[in-house]
Amino acid sequence: MRSCMSCQTMNSKFQDLEAKVEQYKEVLSAKLAFLTMPQPASFSDVVLFADNDDEYPVPVPAHKAILANRSPVLRAMLDNEMKESLSGTIKIGDVSYDVLLRAFVNYLYTAEVCLDQKLACELLVMSEKYEVQHLKDFCQKFLVSNLNLDNSLSTYTFAHQHNFKPIIDAALTLITASMDKLASRDEYTELKERDPRLLLEIYEAYFSKRAN
Amino acid sequence: MRSCMSCQTMNSKFQDLEAKVEQYKEVLSAKLAFLTMPQPASFSDVVLFADNDDEYPVPVPAHKAILANRSPVLRAMLDNEMKESLSGTIKIGDVSYDVLLRAFVNYLYTAEVCLDQKLACELLVMSEKYEVQHLKDFCQKFLVSNLNLDNSLSTYTFAHQHNFKPIIDAALTLITASMDKLASRDEYTELKERDPRLLLEIYEAYFSKRAN
Repeated sequence: MRSCMSCQTMNSKFQDLEAKVEQYKEVLSAKLAFLTMPQPASFSDVVLFADNDDEYPVPVPAHKAILANRSPVLRAMLDNEMKESLSGTIKIGDVSYDVLLRAFVNYLYTAEVCLDQKLACELLVMSEKYEVQHLKDFCQKFLVSNLNLDNSLSTYTFAHQHNFKPIIDAALTLITASMDKLASRDEYTELKERDPRLLLEIYEAYFSKRAN
Repeated sequence: MRSCMSCQTMNSKFQDLEAKVEQYKEVLSAKLAFLTMPQPASFSDVVLFADNDDEYPVPVPAHKAILANRSPVLRAMLDNEMKESLSGTIKIGDVSYDVLLRAFVNYLYTAEVCLDQKLACELLVMSEKYEVQHLKDFCQKFLVSNLNLDNSLSTYTFAHQHNFKPIIDAALTLITASMDKLASRDEYTELKERDPRLLLEIYEAYFSKRAN
């Protein structure tokens, strides 16, 4: 009987918590909807271009106040009478129009993006360059939770190249747990030819893990 | 034993849910922090004034894009070459500098405000006028949850004056449940002298409730 009573109490606490979560979700979703900007062209005071050598780059209208608020690097470019501030245009290097327009700028206005492996890598590099910490965390979490045997070596190589520590650690954990399966894969052979030193580091991590 | 097992299952489900709630809170709080604007004066393209007949009104710098995004009325004032758009200034009528600067404009940028009864009433009227639905809901919820015997008559009078239905209903429920206590209060006597018709409506609601 005692455990039955405790069961009932727990059940009622559980329902209370579920109701609170729903209420909380509703309040926060409304707040987010209120703060999200749809990035309309109206009242735009700056234009972004993808600096990818296109003859006719597509302009992306934006707002200085938003860009400066989201990225310290963009703020510095817009402050202090640098050429970006005077001309009202910002060239974003090494990105495609699609990544720039559809993902990066949209994220600055909405904190939303639909990621795949490729886009997560590209946006991670961009968010590192422009110091958009929230997007950087988001992409890193996506890449860590999306790690599997198929993409572990390529993701490790990518993360190593840009020194993204949380991804390096997670990929290394997965790789060292499946060393036997990986050695027979094409990605392994390719990496051996392209960057033998990186593979050496993986082996060192593997044996250091076994020793501990 | 069966209920004990069910107790354990429930307990573990409860802990899972609690962990999920924490995670959810963290993600949403980070998102909100990312989208919140601290309303810096930099890159401002519009100035608001409290039109309260002060000889030297204090200017509140803001951004057209933000104001237009949050309020359809401010958007209309800024679009279509109305005088506000051409001059880059907006006069906000019938408010004090404090309410305008510290609360209303700050809310448009952060979705945050620390309310008391007076501020909630003033901001509710402003949010109705400028069609800031999120702030309107927030103030209405505050006033409903803050209703007590002391403020029920004054809140009812205020809500009636501006036709805020959810507050009218909540205040009337409280008032009709405490008619005997209210009749001996000073607020009752004052209301009887100032607006006897409103008091008549309260009595009608009371007797209609008793009849049902």
